[in-house]
Amino acid sequence: MAAKKEIPYKIYLEENEMPKAWYNVRADMKNKPAPLLNPGTHQPMTAQELEGVFCAELVQQELDNTTPYIPIPQEIQDFYKMYRPSPLVRAYCLEEKLKTPAKIYYKFEGNNTSGSHKLNSAIAQAYYAKKQGLKGVTTETGAGQWGTALSMACAYLDLDCQVYMVKVSYEQKPFRREVMRTYGASVTPSPSNTTNVGRQILAEHPGTTGSLGCAISEAVEAAVTQEGYRYVLGSVLNQVLLHQSVIGLETKAALDKYGIKPDIIIGCAGGGSNLGGLISPFAGDMLRGEANYRIIAVEPASCPSLTRGKYAYDFCDTGKVCPLAKMYTLGSNFIPSANHAGGLRYHGMSSIVSQLYHDGLIEATSVEQTKVFEAAEYFARVEGILPAPESSHAIRVAIDEAIKCRETGEEKTIVFGLTGTGYFDMVAYEKFNNGEMGDYIPTDEELEKSFATLPQVEE
Amino acid sequence: MAAKKEIPYKIYLEENEMPKAWYNVRADMKNKPAPLLNPGTHQPMTAQELEGVFCAELVQQELDNTTPYIPIPQEIQDFYKMYRPSPLVRAYCLEEKLKTPAKIYYKFEGNNTSGSHKLNSAIAQAYYAKKQGLKGVTTETGAGQWGTALSMACAYLDLDCQVYMVKVSYEQKPFRREVMRTYGASVTPSPSNTTNVGRQILAEHPGTTGSLGCAISEAVEAAVTQEGYRYVLGSVLNQVLLHQSVIGLETKAALDKYGIKPDIIIGCAGGGSNLGGLISPFAGDMLRGEANYRIIAVEPASCPSLTRGKYAYDFCDTGKVCPLAKMYTLGSNFIPSANHAGGLRYHGMSSIVSQLYHDGLIEATSVEQTKVFEAAEYFARVEGILPAPESSHAIRVAIDEAIKCRETGEEKTIVFGLTGTGYFDMVAYEKFNNGEMGDYIPTDEELEKSFATLPQVEE
Repeated sequence: MAAKKEIPYKIYLEENEMPKAWYNVRADMKNKPAPLLNPGTHQPMTAQELEGVFCAELVQQELDNTTPYIPIPQEIQDFYKMYRPSPLVRAYCLEEKLKTPAKIYYKFEGNNTSGSHKLNSAIAQAYYAKKQGLKGVTTETGAGQWGTALSMACAYLDLDCQVYMVKVSYEQKPFRREVMRTYGASVTPSPSNTTNVGRQILAEHPGTTGSLGCAISEAVEAAVTQEGYRYVLGSVLNQVLLHQSVIGLETKAALDKYGIKPDIIIGCAGGGSNLGGLISPFAGDMLRGEANYRIIAVEPASCPSLTRGKYAYDFCDTGKVCPLAKMYTLGSNFIPSANHAGGLRYHGMSSIVSQLYHDGLIEATSVEQTKVFEAAEYFARVEGILPAPESSHAIRVAIDEAIKCRETGEEKTIVFGLTGTGYFDMVAYEKFNNGEMGDYIPTDEELEKSFATLPQVEE
Repeated sequence: MAAKKEIPYKIYLEENEMPKAWYNVRADMKNKPAPLLNPGTHQPMTAQELEGVFCAELVQQELDNTTPYIPIPQEIQDFYKMYRPSPLVRAYCLEEKLKTPAKIYYKFEGNNTSGSHKLNSAIAQAYYAKKQGLKGVTTETGAGQWGTALSMACAYLDLDCQVYMVKVSYEQKPFRREVMRTYGASVTPSPSNTTNVGRQILAEHPGTTGSLGCAISEAVEAAVTQEGYRYVLGSVLNQVLLHQSVIGLETKAALDKYGIKPDIIIGCAGGGSNLGGLISPFAGDMLRGEANYRIIAVEPASCPSLTRGKYAYDFCDTGKVCPLAKMYTLGSNFIPSANHAGGLRYHGMSSIVSQLYHDGLIEATSVEQTKVFEAAEYFARVEGILPAPESSHAIRVAIDEAIKCRETGEEKTIVFGLTGTGYFDMVAYEKFNNGEMGDYIPTDEELEKSFATLPQVEE
């Protein structure tokens, strides 16, 4: 293997090679992502309306469809240096084990305490909140990756951090909760008695263990009813994909450094923050007609918004207090089976990713969770990293593509995003280790029922 | 801060700057560490005797007091490349928060899935076992860091891995157990019915939740009674410190690259694997009269082998099946308070570290666990990494030394070892977060009682 000598196991950028601006893929999109709509009037949300909920500078980023590069403030660049650049790893061991001629690379975002890529946007959002002179921010978290990342960022900037954590996770993932508390955040199980919407939900559904959509509604209410607070969100929004473009920019710079051109780029997709960030610069190449790649979004078969959802305006939260977003969606009432352990549970998909998918720039595929955990375990044993279930969706498809190369003899270059580590997902791994994990695929009837809840919006 | 521009946040070595040989500090020691003794005859253990328990090549390394550099086999170098070099991080944020003129660096060994430095020796020991044509290895684990690392290494080399896990940890740390199982290891709660010594202990102490010393005895018995198995150990032994010298060698190379000379080097000390590895090349400089550093070993006040132990031959395990080792020890019957959550629970200390301490080359200090967790939380919020309680002993003293510099105005350069992450220690963090953590310091009477169990050895 001559290449083994040429390409290091891990490609690190030098500090001076790190991105100094985020890339805004919308600038290169002919078909712009659809705007957020006011849920009452169905008119595009104005900056003024959005500034009641989000920080002013983040609103600008949310609405900016034209500026291709937005400078990363020096303070955020400095913070990034604490855990970035993340390594682009050549999966030599995996290639060897699979006996594939394919060359496999993964961008590993788990090398920070929050354990995932979420920190890239958390620090940006916390920074703008601080800059605006706010006291703190509110948010929701499900599995806990976003809440952990935001807690870290707020601790660093001395900003108050209030996290509404889906009650079932709060109880079943006490360690996640404690990580956030260690970083100084207050963590409230949702639904709670601290908000009107929470009290209302508790009255209607006593004993409910909560949902992401419900926690979003509570966090938004908490933000708009407290002086000096704004709401922040870890995925779906344009601003989040903008911040996450740092993943793709670093990946591209690392590949370019060694003259590597990827054939296939694979990312797991829940709300689209990782996928959108990873692929942005590559999608930009395609949009400008400068290159061509196969880009594959991988989602769970139990929550298949791209592969089985409708492309329509929908609510982002259960309480319906948020703007409407146009996206591939399963309907805001859709909740994946409680037995689904693989994450990526959001009912919708980022408007940017949805538009790119709609325009045929990216493919999508769905995988069943037992297959995902098989890939996760295989990867852990071979490459040494214990992956998050979310990330393992991408691993599954990367392995499948590498096996195809073995069969065809093609030396394709495959790049995938390894978004984080699975340290806090050992309950799911235990289930898998004990052979107790099943697959849960929604029926067409279930989806039809959920689609019926979509709002009627004239476009 | 001009230095901010000169020294990157993280100093990474290039692949060609990584160590190609381990450094054996014993070669430079005038007073060699005392040999292991046969527990029956009190004569030095011969290679032949040791080879019944350990792999042949590891026995050679164990007994080699003269070769200064032992080449790292290419296969191990290749594995190291999967997660090494580990970064040497300049703690700019911590310095700024502490308003200290001190320059603080830490060598972060938590950037691999095993979450700690233990992998450095695990892969070496597994490699030699594989090379010898063995089927598998046995070991014990307490908190689980060593067991996790060994499971990873064995998965990589297709070697069977049998872990005896202290029963109380097995039950209280199910996630650690599942990580090891995910890597394909079999994990048995100790004491168990699978060994004679286990059955004997269970008969004598029904309902016991086990101890490290007892798990060692079971693992050794399992190794010597199965065809094609050997026992491996994650600390204390000379061979382990040899492998861990990779930490110190990389640290020194990274410092040299930027012309940095440390004044103080700090490591946490349990059995001595991390401390010994980190300080070896620096101690070598001192032993050869080429440089001078303050080297500080930090241990828990609840298990103070260096600061309050006796320097004497002692048993390494409860079942007394292992050789005797001369070390600073609290007596093999000593078990720190069950309320001690900070790790570093072994009753003795590596013979090499013990000898260096005895000869005045290194200092030792002990810290109470609430102070340790205060430092851990402070560090997490400022530097972003959630440290293992073990590592946080070193953080505590590094912070204290940096504060002294603030008071005196001295611009000392402080280097400490950050051995791992605390993801699996959230029960302890929760206790601390809830203000329920106490300090547990053994009384002189308790220690005297334990010293009374030391074997009588004529030297």
